[in-house]
Amino acid sequence: MRPKIYLFGDSITEGSFSNGGWGASLANHFARKADVVLRGYSGYNTKWALKVIHKVFPAAGDAPLAVTVFFGANDAALPDRDSGFQHVPLDEYKQNLLAIVAYFKKQWPSARIILITPPPVDDNARLMYPFVEKPLGLPERTNEAACQYAKQCLDVAAECGLPAIPLCEKMQQLPDWKSLLRFSCLIIFSLPITATVPTLKNIHLPKCSDGLHLSQKGNKFVFEEVINLLAKEQISLEALPADLPLISEIDPSDPLKSFGN
Amino acid sequence: MRPKIYLFGDSITEGSFSNGGWGASLANHFARKADVVLRGYSGYNTKWALKVIHKVFPAAGDAPLAVTVFFGANDAALPDRDSGFQHVPLDEYKQNLLAIVAYFKKQWPSARIILITPPPVDDNARLMYPFVEKPLGLPERTNEAACQYAKQCLDVAAECGLPAIPLCEKMQQLPDWKSLLRFSCLIIFSLPITATVPTLKNIHLPKCSDGLHLSQKGNKFVFEEVINLLAKEQISLEALPADLPLISEIDPSDPLKSFGN
Repeated sequence: MRPKIYLFGDSITEGSFSNGGWGASLANHFARKADVVLRGYSGYNTKWALKVIHKVFPAAGDAPLAVTVFFGANDAALPDRDSGFQHVPLDEYKQNLLAIVAYFKKQWPSARIILITPPPVDDNARLMYPFVEKPLGLPERTNEAACQYAKQCLDVAAECGLPAIPLCEKMQQLPDWKSLLRFSCLIIFSLPITATVPTLKNIHLPKCSDGLHLSQKGNKFVFEEVINLLAKEQISLEALPADLPLISEIDPSDPLKSFGN
Repeated sequence: MRPKIYLFGDSITEGSFSNGGWGASLANHFARKADVVLRGYSGYNTKWALKVIHKVFPAAGDAPLAVTVFFGANDAALPDRDSGFQHVPLDEYKQNLLAIVAYFKKQWPSARIILITPPPVDDNARLMYPFVEKPLGLPERTNEAACQYAKQCLDVAAECGLPAIPLCEKMQQLPDWKSLLRFSCLIIFSLPITATVPTLKNIHLPKCSDGLHLSQKGNKFVFEEVINLLAKEQISLEALPADLPLISEIDPSDPLKSFGN
């Protein structure tokens, strides 16, 4: 009865239904119009995403209105550092994104495919965050790398004629863009954490900032970017029919009229 | 691939994906385990719910893990006041709930059906909130009525051998239970609002309190009640398999092993 909007991505998608998250905000926005379906896989890169895409989105089932494709933050992990096992070379990232787009285009010709670039990285916060067991004392993700992958993502969108959200670029246009990247502890529930990094001892960190995931402000930023882009693609509250009569449409003097009696 | 949990109810369900909402919190909790699907219809009572249930939940499709049935706040609107058109007599409310339960039992014999009673009402806040166009100067919902409907809901659960959340009763066990009922403006987007009630002029109201819908604290209360009850029914993070390997299960020295290569 209701059309779907799929959110396909990594932890920034998986965590998007946390308090103030962009996914939950989308679901709330379209509460009577569309189902927002979460398909976020924490830690995944485009290589792993391609390995599982046929399981996540099997051939059966109706085409969704749209699917957001939001990968790159893990692909951009530096190859010789602690998260190197998540790294995907830049060119392979591009080929993988092209293959993901091709899969969706073949499966659902009518669906809007929306590419979202990885967000920027706050190198200093990333360096300080004790998110791996044996840190080398070097950040395993950098803003420089994130920006390269973001550019590649935009190239894929341009080649495929798809709409994209240049998150990395747009966020950094804000003077206080690093405040978009603080995040709640809840997102990293599956990662082992030790707080033994010597450099941490005398530093007061914002609680659970990791310089990569989104703060509530960052989530709001992404939510607004997504609904604005969807609206340009005719996916908006105005364009979509409501599922069943709204209370404002029901005649108080004869409510059952609205239900065909 | 993922099982579903349906949320069927009125505005307290429809608004449950707002910031800190109990539905969004459930979706976040089960982010890799189950889809939490919103079927909330603002303003609806059990009579209207019965009229549309076959459209909302058609025969096709797999059985969900569970469905929450959360009606009564509108049925309990007083018949001779401004929201009288939403009123359903107490006994009819019971019969309607029984019919809703019977529909789900027939459709999905394996699904857990969870009844949630309406929450309490803060009569004073309700009286002061200018939520209808021509208020009579009397509250159109009262705590006394809400409690009667809540009791009836529990009777239905007992008769049917179903688990239930006695929200009305449990919330009122907290000394500051009225703080559970403040809510965000966003929920009432579809209702016409005028602020012309004379008695409002010299009163400083909590922003958008309406004495009926849930505050963030109230949403957290409902979320915790629901996950606790689901856990008793073997629907928990521990009992449900994850959709695809978790990052913590992936071997950094051979990640593709987790994906069957």
